[in-house]
Amino acid sequence: MSHGEALRQATTVLSVVTRGRGLAEITARIRDWVGASGMQTGLLTIFVRHTSASLLIQENADPAVQRDLERFLARLVRDGDPLFEHDQEGPDDMSAHVRAALTQTQLSVPLVRGYLALGTWQGIYLYEHRTSSHRREVAMHLIGS
Amino acid sequence: MSHGEALRQATTVLSVVTRGRGLAEITARIRDWVGASGMQTGLLTIFVRHTSASLLIQENADPAVQRDLERFLARLVRDGDPLFEHDQEGPDDMSAHVRAALTQTQLSVPLVRGYLALGTWQGIYLYEHRTSSHRREVAMHLIGS
Amino acid sequence: MSHGEALRQATTVLSVVTRGRGLAEITARIRDWVGASGMQTGLLTIFVRHTSASLLIQENADPAVQRDLERFLARLVRDGDPLFEHDQEGPDDMSAHVRAALTQTQLSVPLVRGYLALGTWQGIYLYEHRTSSHRREVAMHLIGS
Repeated sequence: MSHGEALRQATTVLSVVTRGRGLAEITARIRDWVGASGMQTGLLTIFVRHTSASLLIQENADPAVQRDLERFLARLVRDGDPLFEHDQEGPDDMSAHVRAALTQTQLSVPLVRGYLALGTWQGIYLYEHRTSSHRREVAMHLIGS
Repeated sequence: MSHGEALRQATTVLSVVTRGRGLAEITARIRDWVGASGMQTGLLTIFVRHTSASLLIQENADPAVQRDLERFLARLVRDGDPLFEHDQEGPDDMSAHVRAALTQTQLSVPLVRGYLALGTWQGIYLYEHRTSSHRREVAMHLIGS
Repeated sequence: MSHGEALRQATTVLSVVTRGRGLAEITARIRDWVGASGMQTGLLTIFVRHTSASLLIQENADPAVQRDLERFLARLVRDGDPLFEHDQEGPDDMSAHVRAALTQTQLSVPLVRGYLALGTWQGIYLYEHRTSSHRREVAMHLIGS
């Protein structure tokens, strides 16, 4: 499948208020914006503008998956680990940076026949790694036709 | 180097049958598809439509690298870890999701003078994290000229 | 915001000489190249052509963050771990591949109104995982208008 239609771009910023540590699903908001562009074929890129929050595509069916992933990361990257020097903002400060490094700052998803190429069980999540609520910005870029 | 030729897009889906846990190289299939597009400059994006398989660029020379990586992940993320609630599909179910979260769901590779900008020792792999064989879909998107 | 101006592409390769293990900031060099393109809206992709070095977006304010991240990875992925078969180039050979697998080979950043959409505290780093100095190549691709 090849497309020669005139290509164009769109950008926006999604503002997400998190409720402390955990995954906040943003799939519907992303789909709405992509749908409003009217593009049928293209590439969506989302980029989180922070180093203590990240992006992740994970299962959207059983909520236990998200709880298990969170428990795994909490055990792997201990808050207040004596290894860490950087603790200006508390015991969850440096662990948040490490968790962000081990997951994703950016994700791109192809757009095919008007739909994001997500699998049936895939959701797009903003992962808040700080224990308190934050306002997070996700820059979005879409190119296509 | 700047290019003003008319840009176009192409998309396809690669179907990969895995043989249980481990890395399945897909570099040649990707190269063939990119080559058939005739594009010289562009951006290739590949996206795995699952949350218990992932993508990885790794060394393609010594097979021991892949075995070592697999052993490392198997020790880091234990199958059947009592920490995990989610085990509907067996002891390798939740560990597969964690392994996918720690690696990549999506990869983009620049296309330069007709070739993907892979280093000499880099191969593109689909990483199957479930212990049994699965059919996996990799969505591909190419934009360029 | 939607853009219909004629799209174009640019590519280059950044050569980075590292001083052994650690994060080498490349934000300024990337910004200079993107700025010279004159594009206002677009998508930048950077891709490291190696499997024992990687890319990471991390905090650029307190240098302790980088030291802590390095200490965390050094503890998680031990050099010379008896688990590893592959040690042709020494005890930091296989650990470098694992560290690369757990971080990123590629990053894309939206370009908005002439600026990369990086947050205030985000820097782009090449992460050298080998203990000795290496010359590393980072392929860059920019598409936009």
